[in-house]
Amino acid sequence: MKTGVWLIGARGNVAAVSIVGAKAVASGITETTGMVTAREPLSDLALPEVDDLVFAGHDIRSQSIVETAEAASASGGVPPQSTIEAVRSDVEAVDSRIKTGTAINCGQVVGDIAEGNAAVNQTVPDLVSAIRDDYESFVAEHDLDRLVVLNVASTEPPLENTDAYATADELEAAIENDDRALPASVLYAYAAVSEGHPYINFTPSTGSDLGGVREVARRNDVPHMGQDAKTGETLVKSALAPMFAGRNLRVLSWEGHNILGNTDGLVLDDEANKAGKVKSKDGLLEEILGYETQSRVRIDYTPSLGDRKTAWDHIHFKGFLGTEMKLQFTWEGSDSALAAPLVLDLVRLVAHADANGESGVQPQLASFFKSPMAYETHDLSQQFEQLREYAHTYLPET
Amino acid sequence: MKTGVWLIGARGNVAAVSIVGAKAVASGITETTGMVTAREPLSDLALPEVDDLVFAGHDIRSQSIVETAEAASASGGVPPQSTIEAVRSDVEAVDSRIKTGTAINCGQVVGDIAEGNAAVNQTVPDLVSAIRDDYESFVAEHDLDRLVVLNVASTEPPLENTDAYATADELEAAIENDDRALPASVLYAYAAVSEGHPYINFTPSTGSDLGGVREVARRNDVPHMGQDAKTGETLVKSALAPMFAGRNLRVLSWEGHNILGNTDGLVLDDEANKAGKVKSKDGLLEEILGYETQSRVRIDYTPSLGDRKTAWDHIHFKGFLGTEMKLQFTWEGSDSALAAPLVLDLVRLVAHADANGESGVQPQLASFFKSPMAYETHDLSQQFEQLREYAHTYLPET
Amino acid sequence: MKTGVWLIGARGNVAAVSIVGAKAVASGITETTGMVTAREPLSDLALPEVDDLVFAGHDIRSQSIVETAEAASASGGVPPQSTIEAVRSDVEAVDSRIKTGTAINCGQVVGDIAEGNAAVNQTVPDLVSAIRDDYESFVAEHDLDRLVVLNVASTEPPLENTDAYATADELEAAIENDDRALPASVLYAYAAVSEGHPYINFTPSTGSDLGGVREVARRNDVPHMGQDAKTGETLVKSALAPMFAGRNLRVLSWEGHNILGNTDGLVLDDEANKAGKVKSKDGLLEEILGYETQSRVRIDYTPSLGDRKTAWDHIHFKGFLGTEMKLQFTWEGSDSALAAPLVLDLVRLVAHADANGESGVQPQLASFFKSPMAYETHDLSQQFEQLREYAHTYLPET
Amino acid sequence: MKTGVWLIGARGNVAAVSIVGAKAVASGITETTGMVTAREPLSDLALPEVDDLVFAGHDIRSQSIVETAEAASASGGVPPQSTIEAVRSDVEAVDSRIKTGTAINCGQVVGDIAEGNAAVNQTVPDLVSAIRDDYESFVAEHDLDRLVVLNVASTEPPLENTDAYATADELEAAIENDDRALPASVLYAYAAVSEGHPYINFTPSTGSDLGGVREVARRNDVPHMGQDAKTGETLVKSALAPMFAGRNLRVLSWEGHNILGNTDGLVLDDEANKAGKVKSKDGLLEEILGYETQSRVRIDYTPSLGDRKTAWDHIHFKGFLGTEMKLQFTWEGSDSALAAPLVLDLVRLVAHADANGESGVQPQLASFFKSPMAYETHDLSQQFEQLREYAHTYLPET
Ligand SMILES: NC(=O)c1ccc[n+]([C@@H]2O[C@H](COP(=O)([O-])OP(=O)(O)OC[C@H]3O[C@@H](n4cnc5c(N)ncnc54)[C@H](O)[C@@H]3O)[C@@H](O)[C@H]2O)c1
Ligand SMILES: NC(=O)c1ccc[n+]([C@@H]2O[C@H](COP(=O)([O-])OP(=O)(O)OC[C@H]3O[C@@H](n4cnc5c(N)ncnc54)[C@H](O)[C@@H]3O)[C@@H](O)[C@H]2O)c1
Ligand SMILES: NC(=O)c1ccc[n+]([C@@H]2O[C@H](COP(=O)([O-])OP(=O)(O)OC[C@H]3O[C@@H](n4cnc5c(N)ncnc54)[C@H](O)[C@@H]3O)[C@@H](O)[C@H]2O)c1
Ligand SMILES: NC(=O)c1ccc[n+]([C@@H]2O[C@H](COP(=O)([O-])OP(=O)(O)OC[C@H]3O[C@@H](n4cnc5c(N)ncnc54)[C@H](O)[C@@H]3O)[C@@H](O)[C@H]2O)c1
Ligand code: NA
Ligand code: NA
Repeated sequence: MKTGVWLIGARGNVAAVSIVGAKAVASGITETTGMVTAREPLSDLALPEVDDLVFAGHDIRSQSIVETAEAASASGGVPPQSTIEAVRSDVEAVDSRIKTGTAINCGQVVGDIAEGNAAVNQTVPDLVSAIRDDYESFVAEHDLDRLVVLNVASTEPPLENTDAYATADELEAAIENDDRALPASVLYAYAAVSEGHPYINFTPSTGSDLGGVREVARRNDVPHMGQDAKTGETLVKSALAPMFAGRNLRVLSWEGHNILGNTDGLVLDDEANKAGKVKSKDGLLEEILGYETQSRVRIDYTPSLGDRKTAWDHIHFKGFLGTEMKLQFTWEGSDSALAAPLVLDLVRLVAHADANGESGVQPQLASFFKSPMAYETHDLSQQFEQLREYAHTYLPET
Repeated sequence: MKTGVWLIGARGNVAAVSIVGAKAVASGITETTGMVTAREPLSDLALPEVDDLVFAGHDIRSQSIVETAEAASASGGVPPQSTIEAVRSDVEAVDSRIKTGTAINCGQVVGDIAEGNAAVNQTVPDLVSAIRDDYESFVAEHDLDRLVVLNVASTEPPLENTDAYATADELEAAIENDDRALPASVLYAYAAVSEGHPYINFTPSTGSDLGGVREVARRNDVPHMGQDAKTGETLVKSALAPMFAGRNLRVLSWEGHNILGNTDGLVLDDEANKAGKVKSKDGLLEEILGYETQSRVRIDYTPSLGDRKTAWDHIHFKGFLGTEMKLQFTWEGSDSALAAPLVLDLVRLVAHADANGESGVQPQLASFFKSPMAYETHDLSQQFEQLREYAHTYLPET
Repeated sequence: MKTGVWLIGARGNVAAVSIVGAKAVASGITETTGMVTAREPLSDLALPEVDDLVFAGHDIRSQSIVETAEAASASGGVPPQSTIEAVRSDVEAVDSRIKTGTAINCGQVVGDIAEGNAAVNQTVPDLVSAIRDDYESFVAEHDLDRLVVLNVASTEPPLENTDAYATADELEAAIENDDRALPASVLYAYAAVSEGHPYINFTPSTGSDLGGVREVARRNDVPHMGQDAKTGETLVKSALAPMFAGRNLRVLSWEGHNILGNTDGLVLDDEANKAGKVKSKDGLLEEILGYETQSRVRIDYTPSLGDRKTAWDHIHFKGFLGTEMKLQFTWEGSDSALAAPLVLDLVRLVAHADANGESGVQPQLASFFKSPMAYETHDLSQQFEQLREYAHTYLPET
Repeated sequence: MKTGVWLIGARGNVAAVSIVGAKAVASGITETTGMVTAREPLSDLALPEVDDLVFAGHDIRSQSIVETAEAASASGGVPPQSTIEAVRSDVEAVDSRIKTGTAINCGQVVGDIAEGNAAVNQTVPDLVSAIRDDYESFVAEHDLDRLVVLNVASTEPPLENTDAYATADELEAAIENDDRALPASVLYAYAAVSEGHPYINFTPSTGSDLGGVREVARRNDVPHMGQDAKTGETLVKSALAPMFAGRNLRVLSWEGHNILGNTDGLVLDDEANKAGKVKSKDGLLEEILGYETQSRVRIDYTPSLGDRKTAWDHIHFKGFLGTEMKLQFTWEGSDSALAAPLVLDLVRLVAHADANGESGVQPQLASFFKSPMAYETHDLSQQFEQLREYAHTYLPET
């Protein structure tokens, strides 16, 4: 059983660390710490083995995956240089399978990274059909049993007029008519689900979160999910906010300040591209608390940090007898080390869903996302519970 | 419907702020922020009104409740001076109902606070019968429909040989034979449940967590619960630790440092009395994570902080590809402001349980305690869920 | 010996707390903690007594000083309500001496605060002569021995073309010709020094930091100093940065994030007004370190904090063998409580300088300012040393 | 000009990183960041070149320097593995010159590390003469122009009765009479200064801080200095405390909590050995502030951190109008990376002092120590100033 993994943004940090990590896990030189699917009860499911994943993808820049991994290693220690060495040839093989994608409507800063490589001038129908061809050639060439498409490309500026693509018909007409407003992430997502490939959106870009794409996915019985993997500050937020809610402590303000130094930081330093990110990091608070509160998320680019991200959150709250109190935290994480195992988890879990006939958005994957496209709650513990319940549905009773 | 609330340690900080707070809530001059029972779905239950609570209790020192409240106000701003003024005469009425308790086996530092007031030289059977009389006179005098006994006295040194009191028979024989090892908290708890009064242990002292007391409670159909209210650092721990577990991130060490300046801090500065506290703050980590990890809880006495407690926690963890990361938090809370609303919640909820024929330890109250005597999980969100489920059992479907 | 203190922005937070504080010190109900002049060796100088200070000033809004103090007390506990009560009538007397100032070129947000009260439409020469009259009437009416003018008004947007006012002649011609670019702070400062009154600029606004004003001050033998009192994050910066320099540790990045909730915060939330502030907070790092480093200062408005400001600084540095390390700090201060004693110190010290024939910018006051107009170093300890040396010049040898 | 460097504790972390670092600096593969002597004006002095330092020393354990460096590299990343590789043979040459020292009165935990290797049963006069022989053979064999002895051995428990060794005569009589109370550090220090070798005590152990040793040093015109290098939390303390003093802000409490995971941490986990350390970390606050304040320094052993030390300090202070405020900091440093460059600095600077006829304790080196044996102030900036002044004495005026 070979499962193909098509990464949009395959030469970025998250992709590179995911690929290096998958190869390292497969060859037994690293542990599975950080992978949710390595833990019970998920580890008891019939998931594709990490060993059986075949990687490929789109990117728009020429820096190779190994180069990205080495730069990440130098700037933040992840992956360790020795691990890169051990899997170098495997990773180079993946690199040879990367196709040039499109940077349409990805913003100026992404355009700069592309250095003119990316297809932006072709018509939209041509772009979509090129993407489709890339997917299908890969499946054919490697004789894959299934292909999962996963978006880890740079965050795009938000798509404004989403209502115009609320149905499959509207979306397909827009593509047909070369609608120049459609962003790359939508084209990749549409191409995936229309071909029957499960799709995961690891980023805050639109991707499959558009009426038209959702309808095509449902029509084709394809599972998909997004948006924006929950790896750092927001993860902590979704663990902590339920404490305030459950104890009826009133959050007066929640200030978050993120500093990070990798390419993702550089892209998010651009106000347009940042817009989507901040929105997605900020939404869950109100839902968990049940009221609106003063909240702000700053993301600043601090090159010296490399792939290491630090977040400081300052939570000012009120308790009994009007007493004001505070919780502050700092989170010092390696973005890619946090993201990469989730990439592998999501690939394995959406493949499992697909194999078992689940289709449309996948609420059991809500814990993985800052803005889950379908969910019951933003409360992290309860989201984990939902995932465990999904697993138990597929497990023999014990 | 009048519900009596008998507080062991009625002149302490937590008690004083609970009483002042209850009076302030009853008279509408403060909000119910911080009270779990003021939130849906609990607020829909038929709970005793805060207005209908009648307070009394035991203590061993002579400082009055108002004096304690004023000292707390001066040193930490809680309760506000204006609130104390507004309810002064109500609180003085409570003070006139305080009886002198016993400080037997409460350690040197508590003995010092007692200044010779507390009964320690009487025989154990005499102590128990005096306590019983105090409870029953209060019920009679105020024509109470129900009496809840709640322990907010200073933390005792742990009782060593708990096996010797594993059954009702053993415990009752020990009392009868004037066993000088029994600590005050057990005598208060036994007196309560043997008289049919629901009992809550807000502290890490033994209280009802003894085979013999549990058996008497079951025999008499009395609900009870403990130990050690979860108000600060441990509360945060139980919200955060599930995040590490759920994401398969390996906690390498979890260091906690608490500094606090109130009488509780002074008592906990004594190594013997601290022993029970640290144990109770430390236990839940292993259960949530599923493995043992290096963990430490320091409690230091810093008088300048008054009733304000600051905790610093440093969590060192490992993720994918061996990557080491960190989460640190500081918690700056007012101990009493956090504790007092929970005192009111627990009184109301255990009264509800009693009214509805629930008996023995009450797992639905697990979220309130660092070391719940009965529980399914230490995961805070799931404990909240359990409490909501309890509520829904008693609520008409909607 | 009566010393007049004319505060520009006399109804703001800093002014209100300074006035309330001075009255409280004078009447012995509060200590002098926080006042540099209350410490040896400065306390040995022949400084005007706090008791002998007579306050008045300009403002543009109608909220009274007591109202400002009460709002500050409610939102941040400073000054304590009881202190306000004790000095209320004294403070009301000051309020009756407040004159309406001008808000010319103070930006939109200050204009909003003025609610049309402030003079903006008069000609510049008229504005200057009105200000002069206000100063002189106050001196005459109260028979003052000396008048110190101190600017604690809202931060203005920076004045762009400072070169146009590099000499006294240019500046005076501009005033004469009704140059509409001159901001309020320059008019107040010019009016002060041209009348022979020592002047202090507590804010980042231009004030006396303009060639023309400096020349007039020198010509008239008037001491003056600024800019922007060093009270919080920058104070800590100037204490810490020399450590990195002295140990040859390389600062890779220094990120600062300030959140604050008072009117100052609201004004600084405006990008134009913020510009001056951020510049002044940021400059000293390079001077102390001796090289340029990545540094950023964020100021965000968080109303829930009231007058309490929290700053988080994250310092990433490199040591021996390329080792990367970190220092992080959080500073939780009351802005006005930090600023007010310095207002009193500066008044007393500039009066002393004036009495002793010192004129022009006053380098011995450098420790008080983020951007001292004359200084040898930004190193806080060395700035303190300079102030001690100044004192020793005037003290008999011991 | 060859300068010998004799390290007591030559196989420990600090020693190993110093030796590796010196070799790396000498061969140009690393920068001199972190070395105070690499900065102006010190870099203008005629100091021994790092290239010309010849290392040797005593230790009591068998683990080689390279093994220590590799363990440090694995647990904390310092020194980088590639650096160790580059200088491996040089370092192995140093290792071959290590002699077995004595562990007399170094406490149980050090005894355990020694595994029976260290001389403890010989008489004191024999121990001293063996140490002397080790020094002199090294000088002779390598034809050294000067030998500097520097103590980087584990911290000993404090020597109790220091008065008994207040003079050279008393000390020498005690040695002669085989006084079994004398600790190893004193023997090493006495042997050094009595042979005319400059001596530096990098640790809190007694070393040369004993009347008798001081007298011998003066008699022999030998410069020496100590104690306890100021590298982490205390360094920051000495930079920050002057800010509170200078601004007349009252420190109400200063709590420090250090967690560290290397062998030093293990040794300090022993209460006896910790005693000296805590004392030395704690002393400077009172001197800088001018009054006693509640202060505490916790040191806890957290193996997961390896050579990385984290300190959290919580400073509670009071300002104007009784306002309570806070400064908190966390310091995340690599102990050895901070210490090693100072070892090289101190060797170079004490050699310079010796070459220039300076003798006895060296106050210009105060900035390097937590408890300088001679000093004017604990204020870090002023200590730096003193060092600069020393340099300027030896530099041509410019
Ligand atoms: N913890 C995390 O790292 C994390 C968490 C949540 C979401 N994300 C999101 O994941 C994405 C990737 O993060 P990263 O750190 O790898 O960023 P990155 O900048 O290192 O990588 C992005 C890659 O996408 C490529 N790319 C950009 N636009 C493209 C397009 N239109 N088509 C194909 N390739 C394109 C870039 O060339 C680059 O190689 C970002 O959107 C980020 O916001 C990351
Ligand atoms: N957030 C919190 O404040 C919190 C949280 C969990 C547990 N607790 C526990 O609650 C208890 C009370 O805390 P506090 O801050 O009010 O302490 P406190 O010291 O202010 O009050 C304790 C009171 O108990 C009295 N007392 C002591 N021994 C007694 C005895 N044997 N019989 C009767 N009275 C006795 C004392 O005289 C004092 O008035 C402590 O055990 C504490 O550990 C408090
Ligand atoms: N720690 C500190 O608080 C601190 C430190 C350094 C500098 N400052 C500066 O001090 C100033 C005052 O701070 P604050 O907290 O009192 O602010 P605030 O907003 O409370 O007070 C400013 C006052 O100035 C008045 N004002 C504005 N423009 C004026 C004008 N042109 N003429 C006369 N009055 C005018 C306003 O009406 C208001 O009453 C600000 O510029 C601030 O940046 C404050
Ligand atoms: N930043 C810092 O690392 C720092 C700062 C100030 C002081 N210090 C002090 O420096 C010393 C060394 O620190 P470290 O981290 O290298 O510790 P370490 O435990 O790694 O090394 C100490 C070495 O000393 C050896 N030793 C112990 N007793 C000895 C004896 N009597 N004779 C000869 N050798 C002996 C041990 O075998 C070991 O090799 C400690 O006392 C520490 O407190 C370190
Ligand atoms: Na399907
Ligand atoms: Na003058």
